Amino acid sequence: MSAQRIALVPGDGIGPEVTAQAVKACDAAARRFGIDLVWEDYELGADYWRITGQVVPPDVEQELAKADAILFGAVGDPSVPPGVLERGLVIHLRTAFDQYVNLRPVKLLPGVPTPIGGLRPEQCDLVILRENTEGAYVGAGGFVHRGGPDEIATQESVNTRKGVERLIRHGFRLALGRRKHVTLVHKANILTYAGDLWQRTFEEVAAEYPDIEVDYVHVDAMCLYLVTQPERFDVVVTDNLFGDIITDLGAAVQGGLGLAASGNLNPTGSAPSMFEPVHGSAPDIAGRGWANPAGSILSAALMLEHLGHPEAARCLEDGVKAVLPRLGAMRGPEMGMSTEDFGDAVAAVIGE
Amino acid sequence: MSAQRIALVPGDGIGPEVTAQAVKACDAAARRFGIDLVWEDYELGADYWRITGQVVPPDVEQELAKADAILFGAVGDPSVPPGVLERGLVIHLRTAFDQYVNLRPVKLLPGVPTPIGGLRPEQCDLVILRENTEGAYVGAGGFVHRGGPDEIATQESVNTRKGVERLIRHGFRLALGRRKHVTLVHKANILTYAGDLWQRTFEEVAAEYPDIEVDYVHVDAMCLYLVTQPERFDVVVTDNLFGDIITDLGAAVQGGLGLAASGNLNPTGSAPSMFEPVHGSAPDIAGRGWANPAGSILSAALMLEHLGHPEAARCLEDGVKAVLPRLGAMRGPEMGMSTEDFGDAVAAVIGE
Ligand SMILES: CC(C)[C@H](C(=O)O)[C@@H](O)C(=O)O
Ligand SMILES: CC(C)[C@H](C(=O)O)[C@@H](O)C(=O)O
Repeated sequence: MSAQRIALVPGDGIGPEVTAQAVKACDAAARRFGIDLVWEDYELGADYWRITGQVVPPDVEQELAKADAILFGAVGDPSVPPGVLERGLVIHLRTAFDQYVNLRPVKLLPGVPTPIGGLRPEQCDLVILRENTEGAYVGAGGFVHRGGPDEIATQESVNTRKGVERLIRHGFRLALGRRKHVTLVHKANILTYAGDLWQRTFEEVAAEYPDIEVDYVHVDAMCLYLVTQPERFDVVVTDNLFGDIITDLGAAVQGGLGLAASGNLNPTGSAPSMFEPVHGSAPDIAGRGWANPAGSILSAALMLEHLGHPEAARCLEDGVKAVLPRLGAMRGPEMGMSTEDFGDAVAAVIGE
Repeated sequence: MSAQRIALVPGDGIGPEVTAQAVKACDAAARRFGIDLVWEDYELGADYWRITGQVVPPDVEQELAKADAILFGAVGDPSVPPGVLERGLVIHLRTAFDQYVNLRPVKLLPGVPTPIGGLRPEQCDLVILRENTEGAYVGAGGFVHRGGPDEIATQESVNTRKGVERLIRHGFRLALGRRKHVTLVHKANILTYAGDLWQRTFEEVAAEYPDIEVDYVHVDAMCLYLVTQPERFDVVVTDNLFGDIITDLGAAVQGGLGLAASGNLNPTGSAPSMFEPVHGSAPDIAGRGWANPAGSILSAALMLEHLGHPEAARCLEDGVKAVLPRLGAMRGPEMGMSTEDFGDAVAAVIGE
């Protein structure tokens, strides 16, 4: 197999610290399995924006487009107006590279403390597939009489049959290799147009998979069930905004944002997929070695899987699973191990 | 004080069972404090719809409009297409009676088991104010090429300055009598139109209340914090859909949907306010005495408060607080006490 080119976008805050550990872990696995990974750094983020006035210039985007995958850290800094980097970089690349599946596992790993009393790892192992290119994220909307007493602000969710169907199909295919259960999460009793399209499409695709069990759960009830009965779920398909909301809750349930991984997948391969921890740039703890790189390393594992290296991916996961129980806390000085030490320990396990 | 007329809409499933206990508790408090409450029953819900083809006929709506308050149970039955009763009754009355504040306390009561490990009652005492008449609940949207491969379904959230401002103002007024902290929950980095209106309005109102501390939290982060740090919050203001989602999560945190109360308030008094437990009709356990009436009784407490009887309201709360710790579980046969016994026990405490 020829070399695989990975574009590295460490970004701001704790982004560089955690991605450095993910690179370390990938390199350890690459050595072990004879995989040829080539890393190319892109210094995008707050500094780049302040200096150049651009978030992702077209030539950089063209280079990124040629990578086999993108490993992303986090963006966001108090010096940049909120939303600029998130929309200009994260949301922009998800859309520009047609990464229509945002895959977010919610898995409680053994030895990780969860806020949910008595929850056991075998009760919490689901995958949330969030539609990643449309819905309320399209930026459609407007103002009437802005700033006056009669102001109206509208915000539109736009859902296409194609967009909804391809996400749902991905969910059913994924469920075939898992516990064969797919749940649609929406708010169809209120969002009657968008919900109707989602429900109809879901039922039509489900009819092609008679062996897969399906159900429907309203997004409000989903929040309740994620906390009280996560074992109800195997594969969950949902829209962009609901997916954003329930995956943060899922991260809480599985022990914290620091542990949550994600892949922005373009399953057609027409452009690279992008892998990123669910957490943000956490400027409050940046540069102190207090960030947990597990989310980044687990995202890199999803990347290796996507690049055709399932054994290497498994090794990264096993490394994280071996090291996490040694931590005193999942974040901060109480971790009892620096970000870098965590990465070294994972790399050591992988090398064994 | 002359008699206060309360329209009782027990509805479907467990609705009648739980509201009967709320009526019992109110009557006990009314006797104790010399309050004159007159109950008028309205048999709306699934049966009514099946027989008449109408959800709320105009003449019934006119009668309801004359009540001093409405005590609502729950609607929904497998025999009725999903959404018909919810939209035709609950959502319709919230809007028709301009009940623009949906007040939902999230309070962990002593002795109630919460799924959140180690959470103590003093860490969980917030009030979520959900805008209740607009946002994504207005039913705006449509289809293009419905049913075909090029179908597009749109769903619009409509937010007015007036609607947003009156909800936010209610939150600031409420915070004055509490811990003087108001949090805005939205997704302003993505929903840039609606979010901008909410943030601008929030900041303008906040400027009039220099003694009140404010902050802003994205809805996804809110889900995480509600589970891990509910003590961060005092009064939370948010839009209709986000409020729907985070209050179900809040209900989970405080021990279950069966315990969660709500008031749909029309603070101007131009039409009656409506009080309802956050739970649904739970047809699976209807008629067995397994429903927890706490949510309904606590909603009735909010009603008594709204009707100008704060001591009576306190008594209902104290009754629920006294009886809840005697339960073996918060719902189902394991409760160890029937729905009716729970109501009798609360009434007995109130009568003491
Ligand atoms: C940073 C933000 C724009 C982003 C989102 O809303 O998708 C984040 O919350 C996420 O979940 O990846
Ligand atoms: C029944 C349903 C329409 C309703 C809502 O979405 O508002 C319910 O979930 C609630 O929270 O009161």
